[in-house]
Amino acid sequence: MTKIKIASIGLGRLGMVHTQHLSELKEEVELLASFALDDAQLDYAKEHFGIKPYKDWKKMIDEEPLDAIVITSPTAFHPEMTTYALNAGLHVFCEKPLGINMDAVEEMVHAVKDHPNQIFQLGFMRRFDPSYQEAKRMLDAGELGEILYLRAYGIDPISGMESFVKFASDNDSGGVFLDMAIHDIDLVRWFTGQNPKKVWAVTNSIAEPKLEAIGEVDIGVANLEFERGMMATIVAGRSASHGNHVEFEIMGSKGWIRIGQEANPHYSTLFTQKGIVKPYMQSFPERFSQAFVAELKAFAEAVKVGSPSEIGANLEDGLESLKIAEVAKISAEKDEIVSL
Amino acid sequence: MTKIKIASIGLGRLGMVHTQHLSELKEEVELLASFALDDAQLDYAKEHFGIKPYKDWKKMIDEEPLDAIVITSPTAFHPEMTTYALNAGLHVFCEKPLGINMDAVEEMVHAVKDHPNQIFQLGFMRRFDPSYQEAKRMLDAGELGEILYLRAYGIDPISGMESFVKFASDNDSGGVFLDMAIHDIDLVRWFTGQNPKKVWAVTNSIAEPKLEAIGEVDIGVANLEFERGMMATIVAGRSASHGNHVEFEIMGSKGWIRIGQEANPHYSTLFTQKGIVKPYMQSFPERFSQAFVAELKAFAEAVKVGSPSEIGANLEDGLESLKIAEVAKISAEKDEIVSL
Amino acid sequence: MTKIKIASIGLGRLGMVHTQHLSELKEEVELLASFALDDAQLDYAKEHFGIKPYKDWKKMIDEEPLDAIVITSPTAFHPEMTTYALNAGLHVFCEKPLGINMDAVEEMVHAVKDHPNQIFQLGFMRRFDPSYQEAKRMLDAGELGEILYLRAYGIDPISGMESFVKFASDNDSGGVFLDMAIHDIDLVRWFTGQNPKKVWAVTNSIAEPKLEAIGEVDIGVANLEFERGMMATIVAGRSASHGNHVEFEIMGSKGWIRIGQEANPHYSTLFTQKGIVKPYMQSFPERFSQAFVAELKAFAEAVKVGSPSEIGANLEDGLESLKIAEVAKISAEKDEIVSL
Amino acid sequence: MTKIKIASIGLGRLGMVHTQHLSELKEEVELLASFALDDAQLDYAKEHFGIKPYKDWKKMIDEEPLDAIVITSPTAFHPEMTTYALNAGLHVFCEKPLGINMDAVEEMVHAVKDHPNQIFQLGFMRRFDPSYQEAKRMLDAGELGEILYLRAYGIDPISGMESFVKFASDNDSGGVFLDMAIHDIDLVRWFTGQNPKKVWAVTNSIAEPKLEAIGEVDIGVANLEFERGMMATIVAGRSASHGNHVEFEIMGSKGWIRIGQEANPHYSTLFTQKGIVKPYMQSFPERFSQAFVAELKAFAEAVKVGSPSEIGANLEDGLESLKIAEVAKISAEKDEIVSL
Repeated sequence: MTKIKIASIGLGRLGMVHTQHLSELKEEVELLASFALDDAQLDYAKEHFGIKPYKDWKKMIDEEPLDAIVITSPTAFHPEMTTYALNAGLHVFCEKPLGINMDAVEEMVHAVKDHPNQIFQLGFMRRFDPSYQEAKRMLDAGELGEILYLRAYGIDPISGMESFVKFASDNDSGGVFLDMAIHDIDLVRWFTGQNPKKVWAVTNSIAEPKLEAIGEVDIGVANLEFERGMMATIVAGRSASHGNHVEFEIMGSKGWIRIGQEANPHYSTLFTQKGIVKPYMQSFPERFSQAFVAELKAFAEAVKVGSPSEIGANLEDGLESLKIAEVAKISAEKDEIVSL
Repeated sequence: MTKIKIASIGLGRLGMVHTQHLSELKEEVELLASFALDDAQLDYAKEHFGIKPYKDWKKMIDEEPLDAIVITSPTAFHPEMTTYALNAGLHVFCEKPLGINMDAVEEMVHAVKDHPNQIFQLGFMRRFDPSYQEAKRMLDAGELGEILYLRAYGIDPISGMESFVKFASDNDSGGVFLDMAIHDIDLVRWFTGQNPKKVWAVTNSIAEPKLEAIGEVDIGVANLEFERGMMATIVAGRSASHGNHVEFEIMGSKGWIRIGQEANPHYSTLFTQKGIVKPYMQSFPERFSQAFVAELKAFAEAVKVGSPSEIGANLEDGLESLKIAEVAKISAEKDEIVSL
Repeated sequence: MTKIKIASIGLGRLGMVHTQHLSELKEEVELLASFALDDAQLDYAKEHFGIKPYKDWKKMIDEEPLDAIVITSPTAFHPEMTTYALNAGLHVFCEKPLGINMDAVEEMVHAVKDHPNQIFQLGFMRRFDPSYQEAKRMLDAGELGEILYLRAYGIDPISGMESFVKFASDNDSGGVFLDMAIHDIDLVRWFTGQNPKKVWAVTNSIAEPKLEAIGEVDIGVANLEFERGMMATIVAGRSASHGNHVEFEIMGSKGWIRIGQEANPHYSTLFTQKGIVKPYMQSFPERFSQAFVAELKAFAEAVKVGSPSEIGANLEDGLESLKIAEVAKISAEKDEIVSL
Repeated sequence: MTKIKIASIGLGRLGMVHTQHLSELKEEVELLASFALDDAQLDYAKEHFGIKPYKDWKKMIDEEPLDAIVITSPTAFHPEMTTYALNAGLHVFCEKPLGINMDAVEEMVHAVKDHPNQIFQLGFMRRFDPSYQEAKRMLDAGELGEILYLRAYGIDPISGMESFVKFASDNDSGGVFLDMAIHDIDLVRWFTGQNPKKVWAVTNSIAEPKLEAIGEVDIGVANLEFERGMMATIVAGRSASHGNHVEFEIMGSKGWIRIGQEANPHYSTLFTQKGIVKPYMQSFPERFSQAFVAELKAFAEAVKVGSPSEIGANLEDGLESLKIAEVAKISAEKDEIVSL
């Protein structure tokens, strides 16, 4: 078995997580190099994961004998980097979403289509989480019957507000639908196998009016209508006082499944004057630690066998989710239903 | 202390519950008579609650020395009965909703307004449930911060489908919004103190296509937009496989409260080959047994002191909820947003 | 149907609860009179439940045309009152335990045996709670398999400590096993159908050393060994910071049932900075409100049909539980195993 | 930083888990070799973890340039292997318990004491689990007040019965206290900082009488009395129908903490005709995956800095736990209290 020679682009919070995971997948991949602009990040990755540091990502792609690359840059860079890497003959794992600017994404789409023998996988890692996997299995096995309604929450902890404001002041996050709700948009598509027909989205910043000054909002609610009157409600937000609230529910005709209702990160229950108290999950890397590893393993396997992962999201998934997120954004601006 | 002389109209499922409760409120009321068309119901109520049976409700109102009446007839009769009772000088407790036909409701509205010194209370009993009471207290005390989003589920058990189909084949239930969602429409108004600006509702009968043949639907999802982009999602339905799923959530800027997440009717947990298993509430009279008593107590107290219950729903509450339910129905028919 | 003419002895906390329930069981009983020493209690009961007040319980038994009596006096009075009532021809419902002094209890035993046609029921109400009923049903149906181990907690809230200290300073509570653990001793006997062979009990007052000054303890742990090495652990206590923690577990070979694991008195869950928070049951009258009514109904039914309730505890149950509690007390004093 | 050169002894279920973890701790250790008798195990470990295979453990210790060794052999071999490795100058991580035969353990004790500069750490991994860590932190910070009572369950799934019977037919497992309860014996000592004064243990095989034919039992209940009347109840067993039930509770004067009450391995809740259903943890490697890694990291760190881990169990912990387990075994045989 030959290992896949790989490099990573981006050593921010999630980029570092991916890079660490790549360093641990010793059987599947050989991690050669990483790109970042920040010296401290490069030093850390070099010391802990043995990567060769680069401050020029094109140079890294050109010089290293790579089979594949993992891109975790700010979203706006995804199209250019993906296109460059594909043209250089690499398989590409790219963080979600595809991009922010649709013109740039168009180019990316062409690049992916022009290289049909190269794997392109998008980082919708929730699909790989054991709970979502179990939901999918039950649904496909008919154990939940037909889907009547779906609900998804993805609310970041208020504790991350300050750093988000700083980030979003300097960068275009893409907004609450493109940046956050897109995970659940993808899941709704994955579970139903359908694209919505109509979308009505509404946003507010009641809790955090300061977000509007930087072109952001706190809460986004997107209602998606599918064939036969099936609906999905997706709520994304940035200000949960209790933690990182990621919840998903499928209301089926034979049974419902709810994921993340009480996401206790460990197994303790307190009985105190406050009542019955359980901790709540604080960070998404902790919540999805297994999924983050599994999606990279699936990518490595896909590269090895030469055909895409059945679970992993592909170009079309990325494109459709992006369109729906865009439509949600437009719907929220107009405060009216937008048809797809 | 003089007891309130009272009679009940209707001895169906809920009417019998009310009549029993009236018979137990010995300190507050003196239950004199009940009206029903069904002999078996009348016999049962006579034997167990000592009522004088009537098969003519007008005669009962005319002949009995009543102070007040509790109306639990099919919705379409509410306006006429309420009006007649008010004109006869009685205080009226009427089940929700006000009515089905808006013209008839108009008359009822006039009757209530014409008798400002008589109590009129509408049967939105959930307001009296300890969990909803606690949510209201926390909200009013500022403990939840500002409301960012609300979600309500009211899904009847599939086990009741057959009897509902029979009922709805012979009667106009009012439909999923008027008959079912209206409880949560009232609660959303009660918690927020606001009326929605826009509504988008969608329905489906994916699980139970036969409902469409009798002019009904299974699932109704109503999305309500309020000032500042605050939204509420209300899901009503008739086909939960696990029981009577009544859930309500307030997402607040300082904390969330969720009611009915795991409505275990008692206190047992099983550990078996199936996993960790808890029973789920099967019937609404069981779920809201305390609330049903409390709302009648509040009505009796209101009659006694001569001013309406602060918690109980009044005419305006009934009217606004009805309008919203109507708008939801229209929105679902047109599949578009309707403004109020 | 003739109603049972009944009176109540004792209008303390639990006595008032019983008296109220008797007043509400209108179909089954006619509540005539109540005995108490306290004027305020008598006045309250007279006003609310329409009882004829007595400050001399013998006089009440002698003068009123009673069929039955409900005794909720301090434990030490149970034997004398029960004996007197039985001799007066009354059916007796007596609060647990039978008594404190074994000589007095002997007399009571004789009185009960001398009046085999009069119902004697002991107030082990937990047997009537829906959760315990369900456990019994499952066990009898073989759904839990054979019992391998049992565990019971009965811990009073620390909030009641002050009033308990006051009470126990003036009265003989009987101690932690006789006063508290006896409920679970009864349940263990009820579920297993066995009496234990050996007992080892240990007590401590680590949390509340002041209890020792008045001859009480805080925590009592009794380990009971049954045939074939089956064990039960019963923990009674007086200082739970979170509420009234009543929990019971049957570890069966086919499944386990646990009652009261998270005894949320209503249906709310909070998500706040403290985590996921649920309230905990604070009072036993609230926890066992249904059971308290059901045991009186069963008593009334037993009187009516002339044979004891199948669920209700009888003299032997009371006697055996008392012996086991006594043995636990002795075992704790000696800190050694005591055989029965 | 120099990496610790390490080898593993034993490639059974847990031995393979340890070996995999060692292979992943790339920054801390360099995994050189493994010993096993089984060729398939050696082949698997060679292929996946790159170890050099040995079928003679002494030879492996003699020939490889090792700093440390991880011993996961059957318990009876622990003393000899530990002694040999210590004498060869190696640091030793040894699975619990120390051994089965006390004479052999005596030798081991001398060996550890004779090499005070070599790290010896025992595999009580539960101490490293985040939930137990949190309990310890709260306890040490005074947040739970003083300990009033402790309870521990460690019940293996019935699904493992067949393979256990096969194993125990050929090997001396040590019995339910030495093999299973010892984890909780260690935890009780760790949390309380005390050794018990008295023990009463009882066993049964009601569910699985066949175990007695091979000198084993199904259920073991050990009651431990500590200073001031504090008690601990430890229940170990082999036949839970629902999974691997590992639960631990500290009843404190200020609050209780309960670990593993509903050990859902992921985050899903089902609502079906069966009620509210959550999966239960099936395997201990899954339950303690983080702890197994953390204890090896702590061992590597201890070796590196030259002083034992503060959390990890040392020789005395192993010795005292072993004594208590032995006393429990004797108590169960005699069915009487045994003092320590």
